Parts: sequence; C-alpha cells; structure tokens
Amino acid sequence: MSTSASALAIEKQVELLTGVEDKYGGIILEIEKYMDSEVFLSLLRASLSQRKQQGKRAVWIKLPIEFVNLVEPTVKEGFKYHHAETDYLMLVKWIGESADTIPNNASHRVGISAFVMNEKREFKRRVASSKEQVSGNSPTGVVDEIDTEFVEILAFRQSHQSFFTKSDLLFMCMLRPLSFDIQKQDREIEAAQWMSVDDYAEQPFIQKHDSFRGVAKVCLTKSEKEYAGFSPVPRTTTASGKTSYLYFNSRDVNKL
Amino acid sequence: MSTSASALAIEKQVELLTGVEDKYGGIILEIEKYMDSEVFLSLLRASLSQRKQQGKRAVWIKLPIEFVNLVEPTVKEGFKYHHAETDYLMLVKWIGESADTIPNNASHRVGISAFVMNEKREFKRRVASSKEQVSGNSPTGVVDEIDTEFVEILAFRQSHQSFFTKSDLLFMCMLRPLSFDIQKQDREIEAAQWMSVDDYAEQPFIQKHDSFRGVAKVCLTKSEKEYAGFSPVPRTTTASGKTSYLYFNSRDVNKL
Repeated sequence: MSTSASALAIEKQVELLTGVEDKYGGIILEIEKYMDSEVFLSLLRASLSQRKQQGKRAVWIKLPIEFVNLVEPTVKEGFKYHHAETDYLMLVKWIGESADTIPNNASHRVGISAFVMNEKREFKRRVASSKEQVSGNSPTGVVDEIDTEFVEILAFRQSHQSFFTKSDLLFMCMLRPLSFDIQKQDREIEAAQWMSVDDYAEQPFIQKHDSFRGVAKVCLTKSEKEYAGFSPVPRTTTASGKTSYLYFNSRDVNKL
Repeated sequence: MSTSASALAIEKQVELLTGVEDKYGGIILEIEKYMDSEVFLSLLRASLSQRKQQGKRAVWIKLPIEFVNLVEPTVKEGFKYHHAETDYLMLVKWIGESADTIPNNASHRVGISAFVMNEKREFKRRVASSKEQVSGNSPTGVVDEIDTEFVEILAFRQSHQSFFTKSDLLFMCMLRPLSFDIQKQDREIEAAQWMSVDDYAEQPFIQKHDSFRGVAKVCLTKSEKEYAGFSPVPRTTTASGKTSYLYFNSRDVNKL
C-alpha cells in the first residue's frame, strides 16, 4: 500500500479507533470492523500518541476472534495479553508515566453446590457450573423445577491451581423449597429423590472422603437448626454505585 | 518455502508438537521454540489428526506471547481462545465426538482485606491484591512486619462484573498477631497505627457507606467474641489427591 492510499484509509477509518474511557484513566478501544493489519497499525500508532497527549495511562484493545489478523501487530506495538474469552482477546499497554497499575486478571472459577432442604429434614443437591453465579437472589431453575429461595452459604471449598493456574471456589448453598402442593411434590420425589440428611451422611462414599464428610457434617448440623452460615445483605458500593452483596453470619451480628 | 524444505522442517521439528495429557482426555501442546507459521501449520494439522486417532477429545495450545505469529494460523485451524495471562495465550479445539465439555474460564478475582486484632480490641487492616491467595496458612508478610496467624474469614463481599465481565470476591480475614515484644510493638504503633475497633467503626466515612458499615459491625461483633466466621480445615480431594480447604462455621459444628 502506498503512503497516500494508507493515509486515505486512515482518514476514512479513523472513527474505528475511537474508544470508551474507563474510571481509571484508561481508554478501551474496541475493534468492530475488519481492517487490513497495515491500516490498523497506522491507526494504532496515531491513537497511542493521541492518548498519551491526553494524559491517558492505559490503552486497552478488545479484539474479537474474527480479527485475529490484528493480534500480531498489536503485540508488536508493545501490548501484552490481559485476558481472553472464547470469542475475544483483550490486550493492554501501559502508557502512563507512573508505575503500572493494570488490574489483575480473574484467578478463580466459582461453582455452586446447592442443597435444597425441606421441613422434614430431607434434601437433595445439585452442582451448578460457575456460569450460574452466586447471588442474593433466588437462583430460580438451579434445582430442577422446584421454586426455591436462597437461605445462606453453608461453607465453601477452595482448591488451588486445580485448572492450569486457576483456582476453584465451590460455594455450598442452602435453599428452601417455596411451594409444596402435593401433586408437585409427588412428581418431584419420583424425579429427584429426596433423601433424609442422615441417610445422605451415612453413605459409604461420603464417609470415605473427608471432603464430603465435612460437608455432610455441616448439613447435619444445619438440619438440627444449630448452624449459622453466611447470608447476603445487599450493599451499595461507593466507587461505582453498583450493588454488591456482603455475606456474613447475620445471626451472630443481630444477637449483639 | 518449497514443499521439500517444509517437509524437512517438519521432520526436524516434530518433537515440538509433543504434548502433555490432561486427566480429561485432552492433550496440552506447549510451543517452546520459534517456528515459521507455515511449518507450524503443517505440524498442527498432523498433530490434530494424530490426536483424533488416539481418541483425544480436546487439544490445547499454549502460545507464549513471543510466538504471537502463531495465533492467526491456530485460530484458522478452528481453535478458540480459552484464557490469557500477560505472557501467554491458551487456545483450545474440541475434537471429540460427544458434546463439548471444555471447562469454564476463571470468572472471579479474589482479594483479601486483612484485619489484625490484638488482645486490647485494637486492630488495623490492609487490603491485599488477589495475587496473595486465601489459604489456611499464615499469610506471612501480608500485614507489614507483624507475624500473624490466620483466624477465620469474617465475611466476604461479591461485586458482579466489576471489571469487564469479571466479578470480584473480597474476603475479610481476621488475623491474630503472634509476637508482642515491646520494642517491636512500639515501632509498629508508630508505623501502622493500631486503632480501637470502636474508633474505627465511628469514623464518618465508615458510617456514611453501608458497605463499610456492615464490615465494621461484623468486626465489632467479633471483638466482643460473639461472632463465628468460617475457618478452614484441610481436606484431601478425591479426584486429584490435592489438598483443598473447606471453610465453615466450625464453632457451630463442634457444638453438636
């Protein structure tokens, strides 16, 4: 490509490298249209010097996987990988004068092991993937068709570096069934096998592994109504104004 | 590159695409030497058909950032991004007959807010980055030079999608100082300002924000020795034999 053709391309496509500012003095450039890697490189260099003049400290580039041709030129301009999901790669370059304060990537996968306990100390459990997130809301649909309400986090388990460099956090959640009309209950018993907590805890495979035994002990204690886990209280965070949830032993706090 | 030169290169470099098997029927190929992208592509195609014949279900490729030239050919062979860290990109292709069971990427960043409380109900706190991990071991060095011992998790806070698509989990940890010789203590008071829990809780910026107020309330309750958080018990997991930690309200479990 000749210099003048390249300059023309920049003129025409310059809006593609506009970005969205973040709260930390950074700018996020999202590439949404196919670009020739040479055109992209010219635009990127121009953007970097413009953003530096504006006093920006970090430049982020989100590259959808279909624009994989732009990964190599981006890295050659001094960008590092930050994180990736199936369909995109996020890269970042620190252009600030001060020391780099680029935030960490996610380090943990989060899973949920849901225990639904009814009034008769019977329960059933299901492990949910980390895509279904822990929240203070009722995790509708997590346990078959039963309407449930979130009670509390009974316990959690951390396993270090269980998957490449990532660690796992598994939250054991206690849920309470919301509706109990007979017809529904019959179907559920058939489909999902309610089991008494005692029968659950006495199973050989539970007794054999101390990890399962520990969880069963917590469930037994809970079924005797003597156990306080962590329950969520919605809190508004200060910086972003978004709602976060604080989980703590509210029984003990309210006793004071 | 001519076909014969390319074939020779494959002959010479074929050991580079050997891999390490994982526990789930996958193979992890780690690229450790620079390769021309055409040579790489030939090797990759040969590897894919070999691994399919072996009955492998997933092929992983770990590409250090210095081999960014290989990202584009890998994606063009049908690989998707899985995750990335500063210095490498992990890609994966499902080659199994059954439905894809590729594990999720990490979804959460984990931070620690450490509260060190002494016998006089004075405490100080420090927020640690998510690089310092939650564990049952004494997090030596987390709080200045004080030797501390981990007591328990008092509470945790979850904020959804606080950073791109990733969520934050902040664990509030109670630590106990281990050593208290006078000389050391003097230095520490000067350097790190021990503060009474009551003074801490009464500060206007704490009272103003319900998130901070919630945490302060938990600390106050704890200082009155009426609060049970989650404490860790090491457990051996069944599948990998690695040690994981189960965190639960052990005071209530042991009361049974």
